[in-house]
Amino acid sequence: MADKITKRADDYSQWYLDIVQRAGLAENSDVRGCMVIKPHGFAIWEKMQRALDRMFKDTGHVNAYFPLFIPKSFLAREEQMAEGFAKECAVVTHYRLKAVPGQGIQIDPEAKLEEELIVRPTSETIIWNTYKTWIQSYRDLPLLINQWCNVVRWEMRTRLFLRTAEFLWQEGHTAHATQAEAEEEARQMLEVYRAFAEDWMAMPVLTGRKSEGQKFPGAIYTLCIEAMMQDRRALQAGTSHFLGQNFAQAFDVKFQNQAGQLEYAWATSWGVSTRLVGGLIMTHSDDQGLVLPPRLAPIHVVIVPIFRKPEERQAVTAAAQQLAAAVRALPLGEWLNHEPVVVKVDDRDQYQPGFKFNEWELRGVPIRVELGPKDLEKNACVLARRDIPGKEGKEMGVPLAGAPDRIAALLQEMQTTLLKRACRFREANSFEVNSYDEFKQKLEEPGGFLWAHWDGTRETEERIAAETKATIRCIPFDRPKEQGKCILTGQPSEGRVVFAKAY
Amino acid sequence: MADKITKRADDYSQWYLDIVQRAGLAENSDVRGCMVIKPHGFAIWEKMQRALDRMFKDTGHVNAYFPLFIPKSFLAREEQMAEGFAKECAVVTHYRLKAVPGQGIQIDPEAKLEEELIVRPTSETIIWNTYKTWIQSYRDLPLLINQWCNVVRWEMRTRLFLRTAEFLWQEGHTAHATQAEAEEEARQMLEVYRAFAEDWMAMPVLTGRKSEGQKFPGAIYTLCIEAMMQDRRALQAGTSHFLGQNFAQAFDVKFQNQAGQLEYAWATSWGVSTRLVGGLIMTHSDDQGLVLPPRLAPIHVVIVPIFRKPEERQAVTAAAQQLAAAVRALPLGEWLNHEPVVVKVDDRDQYQPGFKFNEWELRGVPIRVELGPKDLEKNACVLARRDIPGKEGKEMGVPLAGAPDRIAALLQEMQTTLLKRACRFREANSFEVNSYDEFKQKLEEPGGFLWAHWDGTRETEERIAAETKATIRCIPFDRPKEQGKCILTGQPSEGRVVFAKAY
Repeated sequence: MADKITKRADDYSQWYLDIVQRAGLAENSDVRGCMVIKPHGFAIWEKMQRALDRMFKDTGHVNAYFPLFIPKSFLAREEQMAEGFAKECAVVTHYRLKAVPGQGIQIDPEAKLEEELIVRPTSETIIWNTYKTWIQSYRDLPLLINQWCNVVRWEMRTRLFLRTAEFLWQEGHTAHATQAEAEEEARQMLEVYRAFAEDWMAMPVLTGRKSEGQKFPGAIYTLCIEAMMQDRRALQAGTSHFLGQNFAQAFDVKFQNQAGQLEYAWATSWGVSTRLVGGLIMTHSDDQGLVLPPRLAPIHVVIVPIFRKPEERQAVTAAAQQLAAAVRALPLGEWLNHEPVVVKVDDRDQYQPGFKFNEWELRGVPIRVELGPKDLEKNACVLARRDIPGKEGKEMGVPLAGAPDRIAALLQEMQTTLLKRACRFREANSFEVNSYDEFKQKLEEPGGFLWAHWDGTRETEERIAAETKATIRCIPFDRPKEQGKCILTGQPSEGRVVFAKAY
Repeated sequence: MADKITKRADDYSQWYLDIVQRAGLAENSDVRGCMVIKPHGFAIWEKMQRALDRMFKDTGHVNAYFPLFIPKSFLAREEQMAEGFAKECAVVTHYRLKAVPGQGIQIDPEAKLEEELIVRPTSETIIWNTYKTWIQSYRDLPLLINQWCNVVRWEMRTRLFLRTAEFLWQEGHTAHATQAEAEEEARQMLEVYRAFAEDWMAMPVLTGRKSEGQKFPGAIYTLCIEAMMQDRRALQAGTSHFLGQNFAQAFDVKFQNQAGQLEYAWATSWGVSTRLVGGLIMTHSDDQGLVLPPRLAPIHVVIVPIFRKPEERQAVTAAAQQLAAAVRALPLGEWLNHEPVVVKVDDRDQYQPGFKFNEWELRGVPIRVELGPKDLEKNACVLARRDIPGKEGKEMGVPLAGAPDRIAALLQEMQTTLLKRACRFREANSFEVNSYDEFKQKLEEPGGFLWAHWDGTRETEERIAAETKATIRCIPFDRPKEQGKCILTGQPSEGRVVFAKAY
């Protein structure tokens, strides 16, 4: 605990790894590129899952589960998908090991699979192969299915949560009778992601469409939410794809429409992953450690009883427990997804209060309550909020009777404050740039989201990316119509797109 | 919908498959041995997960996530584990495919892994390899961790839910400072499983210890819950293992105890899987379809409005919606894990009431409400419960105002009735047998749980299994002490064990 966390200003990348490690969120495993998600990190992911799952169900979706393995030939059926994922697939070739004298356990060459199996990098192919038997008539549509699972993409350069060979995610796969309905679904699910990012993660996002160069393999187009991290880089936080009839054609999924004719079904898919945990950390945390928006915090409040003598211990601990019970009973209902307020009373004897304060600060508990004999004499306690460090974050002498309500208010205030702060940060680091020189200059100092005119071609996008490492993050839905000239080619453009360096 | 379900008496095995298919629970995929869990089946699993997860957390456990892949050498470190699982492993050997002109997509031979990766059949090895860095001192103990995930065991003969190559499960992995504490943990988690099986699944189970021949590879001993299916076969429904210091030794996990000495940590592991869904189906369902205990039913109540004329439609549908709202508001709290009562109003126009009754019966909805114009005149409705088919399951003319309370009572009554019925069935098919002839005779007709004396040797157990296909399901915790003679060898025995044919 004595080591300091690297400061953001000194080494942003190391700061992130320090937070992940020191707050007990995740660590690298001995399996290349695969992470272990530790209990505190997993608890955040569980909170995210609960909130998202409810939003999916409220919009009519149900969960199911499809196989981990995909026959190699399935991947080959959709050309773009094969191209997009073949280079990063874990391939199962055998189904048995055997002991070989002198060589330990080895692959049994007799147990070779006739057809290799791919560990799913995404499940469009296996799911549309299944939908073939589920969809006969327009009456079977829409099919609105989601699955929570693990996927594997053999990434060469990994970073905890943000890019790992195995990660956890949800993938929605829907089938529709009409193009319009499928496009509306893709847009609706992006809106669910936007609402989740902003209302739960307190992470503002741009919403828009990806350029052709950045879209999902197999999609007609890809919609996305893009967030800005504290190093001013962009994080693609969620995508929603309109797949047209590509997968229906590849897997021959036809249905009889109301007019009695056979048609291919229309598809969407959409997903968010444990990458969101990385985005959450990078959006709010500071040089003291993790900062969590209260709606996603595994522990909302920690109460630290302060005492020197044994007779003090009993009184302050009893008062702490009483306060804890009152806070747990706060009716925050839907705001906390109908889960209780989680309060921890840290009455460990082996540590000093200062140590405990640091530890809970590091782990991102939104509200800390300090309660000592002098506070008790005054029937009061001290509240400290995580998002405003030091004395300014403290409320001296809050009456105990009013503390639960004050805590409820602070939790909600903190959720709002974090979103506002992140919005301000993004606004302060978003720039309209009108020449390629200005683009390159701003990209280096200070960096951020650069709103610039682009001629709409893949060539231009690729050249800019090759020269500057900035990519088009999205073509925002709500961009103003504005005639302009591409910063690289001078060709006409009808509106600005957002460039940034990205994770 | 017109096809009848095979009757249990005619072909039990086909009856099971008919239920799984017709109730929309699961189906075989095009990937050998892997199933697709369909939305209705997955909803049951989600209910199970929620209830179990709360029980795990209430006993101090937290969730985490460990890698899908296990380096081959890890498996080799614990000898029994290597022996037990090597024969049924999916092995990843390559991490890339490439397009080969004329041959489509092929493995890229240059992307061969230095060390093969096993898709986890269970995670003791990768987890204990991780615990090595987490455990230094007795202060780090106990470590009480669970994970929900998929695992793969390459089974040759599969059956939906009961035995599949990939399945979903939870696996708890705990580390303790003392043997006594680890043994208590193993016993505690078995008790959690027993409580879940009986209180939620309404499935009575025997609790006890496995014989040496049936224990988990790597365990000192294995505890289990065993249930009886309607064909009188046994289903191993959950296991809890005391692992001693086997894995701590294999992965060198030592901690400094309070006396300052280095010691190996003590371990347990415990798991239940989607197999439980199969057990649930086989315990309660009948020749009309699925029967679900209300606490695990995805839909608790279906209301079918009955009408002929358009003007009737509006009135009965409005009354149905009003009743639905009242039932949803029932305060069943903890009994339903703080989730709402799920009520569906089936107002589809294209189907007749009789069709709807059959469909919801097939899908196992516990309570059906019928509401027509004549009922409405009397301010009443008809309730039918799923566990008592036909007219006897119906309450004619229940007043609408009292219907929600009556429904709450019926749901709880049905939960109890199902457990009692299953207990009676098990009792009626459990026999004390005192000779090998009697054993073989009862095993064939009627079959069931045979309480018999056994000499305690592996040889005897194996000979009985080879000759009769019956295995020792468990050595019950609460068996009476009773001197007797082994049914096969005549050697002395101190109490009966339970034999049965098993899934």
